[in-house]
Amino acid sequence: MSMAVVAVVGAGSWGTAASAMLSENAAVRLWARRPELATELRATGRNVAYTGELMISPAVEVIDDLSDAVEDADFVVIAVPSHGLRGVLAQVADILAERTIVVSLTKGLEQRSLLRMTEVIEQVAPKQRRAAFTGPNLVHELIERLPAASVAVSEDVATATAVQSLFGNEFLRVYTNTDVIGAEIAGALKNVIAIGMGMVDGLGFGVNAKSALLTRGLAELTRLGVALGGQASTFAGLAGLGDLVATCTSAHSRNRAFGERLVGGRSVPDIVSSTTTVAEGVRTSSAAVALAAREGVDMPIVKVVAGVIAGELTARDGTRELMRREAGDEVAGVVGRSGTF
Amino acid sequence: MSMAVVAVVGAGSWGTAASAMLSENAAVRLWARRPELATELRATGRNVAYTGELMISPAVEVIDDLSDAVEDADFVVIAVPSHGLRGVLAQVADILAERTIVVSLTKGLEQRSLLRMTEVIEQVAPKQRRAAFTGPNLVHELIERLPAASVAVSEDVATATAVQSLFGNEFLRVYTNTDVIGAEIAGALKNVIAIGMGMVDGLGFGVNAKSALLTRGLAELTRLGVALGGQASTFAGLAGLGDLVATCTSAHSRNRAFGERLVGGRSVPDIVSSTTTVAEGVRTSSAAVALAAREGVDMPIVKVVAGVIAGELTARDGTRELMRREAGDEVAGVVGRSGTF
Repeated sequence: MSMAVVAVVGAGSWGTAASAMLSENAAVRLWARRPELATELRATGRNVAYTGELMISPAVEVIDDLSDAVEDADFVVIAVPSHGLRGVLAQVADILAERTIVVSLTKGLEQRSLLRMTEVIEQVAPKQRRAAFTGPNLVHELIERLPAASVAVSEDVATATAVQSLFGNEFLRVYTNTDVIGAEIAGALKNVIAIGMGMVDGLGFGVNAKSALLTRGLAELTRLGVALGGQASTFAGLAGLGDLVATCTSAHSRNRAFGERLVGGRSVPDIVSSTTTVAEGVRTSSAAVALAAREGVDMPIVKVVAGVIAGELTARDGTRELMRREAGDEVAGVVGRSGTF
Repeated sequence: MSMAVVAVVGAGSWGTAASAMLSENAAVRLWARRPELATELRATGRNVAYTGELMISPAVEVIDDLSDAVEDADFVVIAVPSHGLRGVLAQVADILAERTIVVSLTKGLEQRSLLRMTEVIEQVAPKQRRAAFTGPNLVHELIERLPAASVAVSEDVATATAVQSLFGNEFLRVYTNTDVIGAEIAGALKNVIAIGMGMVDGLGFGVNAKSALLTRGLAELTRLGVALGGQASTFAGLAGLGDLVATCTSAHSRNRAFGERLVGGRSVPDIVSSTTTVAEGVRTSSAAVALAAREGVDMPIVKVVAGVIAGELTARDGTRELMRREAGDEVAGVVGRSGTF
């Protein structure tokens, strides 16, 4: 049996790391949008700005023409930011093979449409099968080959299993799940909770406060996911709880770090301009608020984070607001269900 | 209205910190078993070995006679290790006022009977009302008055509300819950998962592996709790997820630190003899395995941790075993439910 051909679309940290990992199981083409980055990757085998000292195997073909990269590929693995996914895929949707499985590594919601990433993929490339790959997978740890577990998610079991086989290796255990709604909502919105967690860190609060916020945050995400047709068990699993814990406890999470900087009093544009990559949660926060409003779901934490990002309240006031809300629930005397949010 | 009279039984870290906190809302008597500790507390206002520089208000009456401490108290708050609770309470059960509410701060299971702490309290003092107080409450953060949230748990709503009022203050938000089974099983067994988490830390694995283990660990605890009659929502709340996250991420958790030392190759008796207090999870692990066997619930993580503590396998082999089990689930091809454990 010949090796599967995989096109990885996007040479940021996740895309570059995924190329290195997948090159052990598959023939990999890595698309870099900027020709100078493609040149650097080919010449040095490294992508210093995104993955530091990680060596990409010479077997990985680095390509700066998107059509060449995806042509006749068995898998197209997309690792571009959420706002770029539609445009990038639209450029090549017509030339994708029918058997191609399009896999999203991107966690986010499209801003105006409020669509999940596989929904955008379905609109742009309706003939192909699609999946999401998610879970607690901090890239710098995957690069170090530290043990991890992730989830291949598709409504179609055979597609999920194909993605599971593609990504699985001795240090990365891959499970399957058919609840695409739950997994993608969890993956997108956990970045917003992580920003809130960073705000709590920035104010010097401790593990007790963060654990309470994480607990209430997951309850909020679960409420929205279930309202949209997802399953609560997905939120209790690797794509939900697992990913949320990883993002919220990692010292390397861009979203958590963003929240921490917000408390320092810096403006959102100022923070954004000082970093190479925009924390996905920044974009997701307003989309999440719109989605919650559309579905009639109460999401106080997401709302406060979005308000701070929109400049409607300061990070300090926002964090205090979160603590006050907690008191509110208590005063309301909700017995029995309390402790859950 | 006169102030409630509270006897805090046990002057370890939690008991001492609780006395300091409660002295803002109530007249507190703190029982110290060792007369020399009582003398130190009275003379210096501190309990250096357990709570460092924390000053205990002179209004707290430090008593070394247990009967004097609990006599006619409105609340008896028990903060002794799980193996000591029955014996201590039995000494004074006959003299407790009927109106006394006995509150357990202790997280653990009685070794042979496999009873939860409030079940032991019920056997020893059946006439009094009882409650548990639990959640993500790392003592050193409560001492610093960092914001936190906890849960007052009793089958009887009025009792839970009374405990909520007793403990609640401007920095500690207290919720109520009537699911005593779920809250106590979660509180006891999270210490075992925390030991497993420490083993993973000791082997130098990262956040991805820990997040996966925490997710699977909570699923294990939930399965047992539900089998015993508890509610899954309690495990998703502060007493479950909240407490587990706090214990597993804290640098100060005795249970997590114990697991880390196990990987260093030190024997259990050696580690135990080098610390002032025994990590509760050490005792709970074997009781948890017995309880899981009795209820026919599969608890692979708890089983491995108990096996390492019992000296049946090394911490290194045990941690590898946990990773292998994960592969096992994958090979079994459990689609849909995977990601949950």
